Amino acid sequence: MTDSVLRHLEDSKAEIQDRLFEYLRIPSVSTDPSYEEGMRTARELLKTRLNAWGFRNVQELDAGGHPCVYGEWLGAGDKPTLLIYGHYDVQPPDPVDLWDSPAFEPTIRDGNLYARGVSDDKGPSTIALETLRAFLAVEGKLPINVKLLLEGEEEMGSATLEANCLQHSELLAADAVLSADGARWRADLPTINIGSRGNCGLEFTVTTSNRDLHSGRFGGAVPNALHVAADLLASLHGLDGSINVAGFFENVPPVKEEERDAFASLPFDEQAFFKDLEATAYGETGYTTLERLWLRPTIEVNGMWGGYTGPGTKTVLPNEAHAKLTMRLVPGQKPDRIIEVVANHLKQRCPQGVGIQIAENRGGAEAYEVPKGLPLLLAAEQALEQTTGQKPRHVKVGSTLPLSDIIHRCLGLHTVMFSFSTADENFHSPNEFMRLSAFDEGFAAWVSLLRKLGED
Amino acid sequence: MTDSVLRHLEDSKAEIQDRLFEYLRIPSVSTDPSYEEGMRTARELLKTRLNAWGFRNVQELDAGGHPCVYGEWLGAGDKPTLLIYGHYDVQPPDPVDLWDSPAFEPTIRDGNLYARGVSDDKGPSTIALETLRAFLAVEGKLPINVKLLLEGEEEMGSATLEANCLQHSELLAADAVLSADGARWRADLPTINIGSRGNCGLEFTVTTSNRDLHSGRFGGAVPNALHVAADLLASLHGLDGSINVAGFFENVPPVKEEERDAFASLPFDEQAFFKDLEATAYGETGYTTLERLWLRPTIEVNGMWGGYTGPGTKTVLPNEAHAKLTMRLVPGQKPDRIIEVVANHLKQRCPQGVGIQIAENRGGAEAYEVPKGLPLLLAAEQALEQTTGQKPRHVKVGSTLPLSDIIHRCLGLHTVMFSFSTADENFHSPNEFMRLSAFDEGFAAWVSLLRKLGED
Repeated sequence: MTDSVLRHLEDSKAEIQDRLFEYLRIPSVSTDPSYEEGMRTARELLKTRLNAWGFRNVQELDAGGHPCVYGEWLGAGDKPTLLIYGHYDVQPPDPVDLWDSPAFEPTIRDGNLYARGVSDDKGPSTIALETLRAFLAVEGKLPINVKLLLEGEEEMGSATLEANCLQHSELLAADAVLSADGARWRADLPTINIGSRGNCGLEFTVTTSNRDLHSGRFGGAVPNALHVAADLLASLHGLDGSINVAGFFENVPPVKEEERDAFASLPFDEQAFFKDLEATAYGETGYTTLERLWLRPTIEVNGMWGGYTGPGTKTVLPNEAHAKLTMRLVPGQKPDRIIEVVANHLKQRCPQGVGIQIAENRGGAEAYEVPKGLPLLLAAEQALEQTTGQKPRHVKVGSTLPLSDIIHRCLGLHTVMFSFSTADENFHSPNEFMRLSAFDEGFAAWVSLLRKLGED
Repeated sequence: MTDSVLRHLEDSKAEIQDRLFEYLRIPSVSTDPSYEEGMRTARELLKTRLNAWGFRNVQELDAGGHPCVYGEWLGAGDKPTLLIYGHYDVQPPDPVDLWDSPAFEPTIRDGNLYARGVSDDKGPSTIALETLRAFLAVEGKLPINVKLLLEGEEEMGSATLEANCLQHSELLAADAVLSADGARWRADLPTINIGSRGNCGLEFTVTTSNRDLHSGRFGGAVPNALHVAADLLASLHGLDGSINVAGFFENVPPVKEEERDAFASLPFDEQAFFKDLEATAYGETGYTTLERLWLRPTIEVNGMWGGYTGPGTKTVLPNEAHAKLTMRLVPGQKPDRIIEVVANHLKQRCPQGVGIQIAENRGGAEAYEVPKGLPLLLAAEQALEQTTGQKPRHVKVGSTLPLSDIIHRCLGLHTVMFSFSTADENFHSPNEFMRLSAFDEGFAAWVSLLRKLGED
């Protein structure tokens, strides 16, 4: 006997897809100001829909950045109240010429839906929102009280989420947070994420003279900004990828043996993982690939540029070089302190007489771990077991949900990630996609979880 | 009693400036195919003028790249024949936003003329061409036989100059080459360049996986192309700027003590040199600044890029990184061999499993030295002494005139540089300029030199 809400979701597949496509066509890129219009359009669409579906108190929460969209349905009396999270902003589409179909024109190929943001996080949050819509349409109510928080700055480190949480702590009060962001580890194994790495970042500019110089007239006697920047970046790591920054590992406890054992027992085809990427395994000696991804911190150069980068040759001795760095953090590391130790390393290594300017990114996040006994975690595990027939395994993710950290600090709440995107879906890369099958799996699990939470 | 040709040049100052401005407005950038139209326009202008002024056999010498413009006046019987060289191509104007006035709109400020290419080489070659025009206008003839060779690929390593010289060796036959390119060391001391460094270059691309990856999902376990590229670049030099590439110094003789002594006695205000650049002295231990510039080879990174370089943050783990390198060579170094040793270094240092593609630039040049007893060198020294009242000093230049090397190899001729641009005039940088006073000095010296060569 199919659940009536689930049947309704199946029956309205075509219109759900239409709504998702309309949402995906909006270029809501938060990090680049030239997409401001797309950000505004996405918020208007969400507010219109939430109002039409029966949510109340629909509004934008504006703390000076891209506002969050908020809505609530609180008609479930003394049932629990969940804060359901998603984000409407997406990564930039660059490099656009590597997309097989346009980033903002959703395209179905081979059972996958391709579009920028489909996996991160418009598809997964559509599963959550359409499930709620279906409950309201079929039953006129939700099994529990729900508050929706749809963020617009997830892809830029959740710059004003903290301010919004502090300003609206009463509005956002709940029993726990259920996140439609976070991605499944893999499509064929039910898993629950129990932790994520934190992050923080900085950008630096090296200046070696007051103008670009002729490489013949000045080369050999005047420092080259790109040489300095390359040396600074190379100095951050040993050749095996281990991090060479004083203070970076302070307060980082040794990796727990029980976690190592648990992760070692997960089905993980390392050869296939690297074959798919056409990459070679690499990283800190003494750790497995999963440990490097889930249990160890990183420093990554996300972008670097300087000098002449156009076609042909320009025999310039560049006077400026730039680099963007982000660090992934593990429990024990504080974003501010990590920025400080990396900045100190760069300043100390920078040769005398060479200028270095360091700009910190806003919005770092600490690593996050879900407490093992959290009721929402147990309910999510049961819902997944019910819909898949398998007991879900605990995994972690290497990426960052600043949400979990911020919500915990500002609202005192824990977050369970319940997303149906998958980690291999090219989010942050060209040809981002989401499996169409994940929508069915997601609807079943969300319906089951909401009913379960309403029963207790 | 003023020389009649020189007086004519003074009287026609206004029209000479008009012609120069028209020439400078043409964006004849050779390295970027989008400027093709500017290159063509510059050639048409030169041919029209040469024909109008009385040159014969005006034509383009096309060896598959940007053609040279050729013209000749051979009415001086058994007087010597000089091949006079200049180039009509200019550097790209980037970064355009650092120019105080538009790069292709000549602007006079404080006794200087600002425009891309004014100093390198449209101004200096205008001095040569207008001097010849004035002789023909005033006297109906030149003191010697002249062949003009105006190149269109100087800023891209003279890619097809060699082919042109070989194809047209009879047309270009002469007693020696007088170059209107090469730049004076300084404006207040008469000098003759007796040598220049050679050059060669390559571009490389590092590939660590088949797509850009999410820095959280993959960071720590998959190599980052920018980390690899930074390490490769950093590995080329020691911290003092000395070069760490096996084979780079093979066949490089020790620096000659007589040259060190001569250069040490030159008036050179090192403090002012670096103050003007707002830079700090830097380079190989055991050499002075002038020795580093004139007597020692270099490897410079001219450009480097990879990952996300737009506004804001993108937490990408870049799968590709690119760098452009040029090397400056001293006598004993062969461009092909230097490219080989640098490429070998990069390939050997590149970690296993990481792809590296190396593309050689066309058109490297060996270092060049003028023989001390060359008659044209002696005549040039006398002309400078006559017009300045001072005996010119010998200097070298750190940059490259592929011309000297190619002409010597292909035509067996030696080249004397007789340019009136100055080394501090921001060529290859924003706000390129030329001193207006250099035009008067240049006209006087060129008139004197041509008369002197005609007397012998």
